[in-house]
Amino acid sequence: MSEEAKSKIEELARRLVSEINQNKPPKFTTISRTRSNILFDESANFLRLGNAEEERNFLNVAQSKRFMQTIAIAAKCHKFLTENLHTTIRGLFYQLKYSLGEDIDETLFKEEEESNDLIEDLEAALRMKREDFNLYANRKGVLVGNLKIIDEFGGETTEIDGTKQGRSGWAIPSDVDNKIKFVDIKAKYVLVVEKDAIWQRLNEDGFWKKEDAILITPQGQAARGTRRLIRKFADMGLPIYVFTDADAWGWYIYWTIKTGSINLAYIGKEIATPEAKFIGVTMSDLEEYDFLKKLTIAAKEVDIKRAQEMLNYEWIKKHKEWVDELEKVIKTKKKLEQDTLQAPRLTFVDDYIRNKIKNQEFLP
Amino acid sequence: MSEEAKSKIEELARRLVSEINQNKPPKFTTISRTRSNILFDESANFLRLGNAEEERNFLNVAQSKRFMQTIAIAAKCHKFLTENLHTTIRGLFYQLKYSLGEDIDETLFKEEEESNDLIEDLEAALRMKREDFNLYANRKGVLVGNLKIIDEFGGETTEIDGTKQGRSGWAIPSDVDNKIKFVDIKAKYVLVVEKDAIWQRLNEDGFWKKEDAILITPQGQAARGTRRLIRKFADMGLPIYVFTDADAWGWYIYWTIKTGSINLAYIGKEIATPEAKFIGVTMSDLEEYDFLKKLTIAAKEVDIKRAQEMLNYEWIKKHKEWVDELEKVIKTKKKLEQDTLQAPRLTFVDDYIRNKIKNQEFLP
Repeated sequence: MSEEAKSKIEELARRLVSEINQNKPPKFTTISRTRSNILFDESANFLRLGNAEEERNFLNVAQSKRFMQTIAIAAKCHKFLTENLHTTIRGLFYQLKYSLGEDIDETLFKEEEESNDLIEDLEAALRMKREDFNLYANRKGVLVGNLKIIDEFGGETTEIDGTKQGRSGWAIPSDVDNKIKFVDIKAKYVLVVEKDAIWQRLNEDGFWKKEDAILITPQGQAARGTRRLIRKFADMGLPIYVFTDADAWGWYIYWTIKTGSINLAYIGKEIATPEAKFIGVTMSDLEEYDFLKKLTIAAKEVDIKRAQEMLNYEWIKKHKEWVDELEKVIKTKKKLEQDTLQAPRLTFVDDYIRNKIKNQEFLP
Repeated sequence: MSEEAKSKIEELARRLVSEINQNKPPKFTTISRTRSNILFDESANFLRLGNAEEERNFLNVAQSKRFMQTIAIAAKCHKFLTENLHTTIRGLFYQLKYSLGEDIDETLFKEEEESNDLIEDLEAALRMKREDFNLYANRKGVLVGNLKIIDEFGGETTEIDGTKQGRSGWAIPSDVDNKIKFVDIKAKYVLVVEKDAIWQRLNEDGFWKKEDAILITPQGQAARGTRRLIRKFADMGLPIYVFTDADAWGWYIYWTIKTGSINLAYIGKEIATPEAKFIGVTMSDLEEYDFLKKLTIAAKEVDIKRAQEMLNYEWIKKHKEWVDELEKVIKTKKKLEQDTLQAPRLTFVDDYIRNKIKNQEFLP
C-alpha cells in the first residue's frame, strides 16, 4: 500500500502543476470529516464518511494557508516513502517546523494540532491510512496464537512464531499492512480480551493452544493497528469474539471494534469489524452464575450516563439484547468486571469463555 | 524467588500458630510505609524504607480486622504459589470477596484499595515482591537487542531471540525474576528511551545492532517489571543510559529509574538503578545544536513547578549539572522534546545519541 500512497501523492502533485500551467487556481479536495458528514452505514454496519467534499483553493485567502500546509505535509510524506523511513505525526510536525521555518514561513505550523488535522485530510482525500504514508500511530495490544508473522523491516526479514511468545506475547505494531504478512494461521477464532491481566491469565493456561484461538488484548481501547489487524483476521474468515467488562468502558471498546468510531470514520472500512460478537461479561451472566451476584460493584455515573446515551443510537436500538443489557445496568446501578470470573478458581474464566463459544451465546 | 516466598509465608503461618499455642496474641509485623519512614539512602543513592515497624495484633480491636485481612491475603498467595498459577491484585481481591464472603464475613473486603494496601504490607514484611507471590502488576515496556530470553511459562520453555523482533520488540513482562533468564547478552550498554515512537525510529535504523546496545522503551513512566529489568542489566555490569524529553515528565521518568520512587520505596533496592546516567535531551543541547533553538516549545506550568520542587531535593542539589538544567527551564520557560532530533533528518537522533555516548556527555 505504501507504493500506492507514493503514486497517489505524485498524482496529486502532477494535477496541481497542471492546474498552475493552465493558469487555473490549484485546488486540493478532500472528504469532509465534520459531524454532518459522518454516517452509520445501515447496510454495512459501520461508521463512515458521506460524500460531502471540502476544497482548499490556493487563490482563496481563507484557504491558501491550509492549502500550503497540506501540500507541505504531502511532500514530507513522499520524502519518508522515498527514504523508506518511518516517523510519527510528531516527528513530521518537527520536520515541518524545521525546514519550512527556514525557507518559507516561520509560522506555517505553530501547533501540532494543525498538522494532525491536515494529515487526516490527506488520508481522507487519497483514501489511504497514515501508516501507508510511513507515519506510525501509537501502538498498543498484544497477540499470541498459532500463526507466523513475516516482518520485512529495517532492511531485514524476520519470521516471528506466534506460538513462541512465552509469558509476553507479540506486541501489535501500528502498521500491520505494509511489508508484513500474517501466514500459516491455524486457529478457529480470534478472542479479543479487554484487559491485559485476563489475557495473561488465559495465556498462562494455554487457552489459545487448547482452543485453537488467536488471543489478542487491545490493553484497553484498541489502537489503530489492533483494530486494523482484527479487521484483517475477519477478512480471512475467522470469527471475532470480544470479551470485556460490563460497563461503559467495556461496551465502548466492543462497539469501537465493531462499528469503528466517529474520530476514525474516515478510515472506517479499514478498521471496523461489524462481524464481531460480544461474548461477555453481561448482566445476564448473573442469572447463570449465582456467585457473581455478590461480586457486582456499584456502577459509576459515567456507566449509567453512557448506557442511557447508547440506548439512543440507532444501531443499538435494533438489537433487543443490547437494550435489555443496558437497561439492566441503568435499573440495578450495578456493573460487573471480567476479573470476577477468577473468583471461584483462577481457571474458571477459561471455562466461562469455552461455554459461551460452545453454546454460541453472544450478544450481537 | 517464588519458592522462597512460599517458605516465608509458611514460616509466618507457623509462627502465628505457635503464638496461639503459647496463648500469646498472634501478631503480624511489617515495615512502616508511611512518609516518615521513607528515606533517601545517602550512601546507596536510592529511596528505601527505614527501620520503623508496624504491628497488627489480633487481640487489639483496632488492629484485628487488618490482621485477619493480611493473613487471608497471605493464604491466597500461598494457594496461587502451590497451584503454580498467576493473577493480579484485582483477581486476588475478587477471590477474597468470593471465598471469605461465604464462610466468614461478607464485608471483610469491601474495596480493592484495602487489599492492595495490605499486599504492600506483606511485600515489605517478607522482603519479597508481589511478583514472587505470583501476583503480576501492570506491564509496559518493550525491548530489542542481542540477548536471549529463556522463559519457562505455562508448562513450556520458550527461547526468545532478542534480535528477531522485527518492528515490534519483546514486551517486558511484570515478572522478570521467576522462571525466566536473560542470557547470551552481547551488548555494551542499555539505552532506555522514554517514547515508544523514538524507540521505533531507532529500531528501524538498526541502532541497537550497529551500536551493540539493548534498546528499551518503558513507554512513558517505567512499570515495575521494566524498572526491575533495568536493575538486573545494571547488575550484569551494563551501563544504563536514559534518554527522555527535557520536561517534568521526562525528568520524573529518569529519576524514578535511578532512585526509585516513594510509592515503591519498600522494594527500592530491587528496582532502583543509581548507576543510570541521563543522556538528554537537555537545555544545554541548545548551545551545541543551533537548529534546536526554534524547536523548543513553551514549558507548561507543571514543568516549571516540578523543576522548582526538584531543586529542593537533596539528591538533586548535590548535582550542579541538574541544578543548572532545571534553572534554565525555570528562567526561559521553554522545554525541549526528544522528537525534535528528527527535524533535520529522521536519522539525526541516532547520531545525537552516538555522539553523547562517544563523548561520555551525560548528566549524573
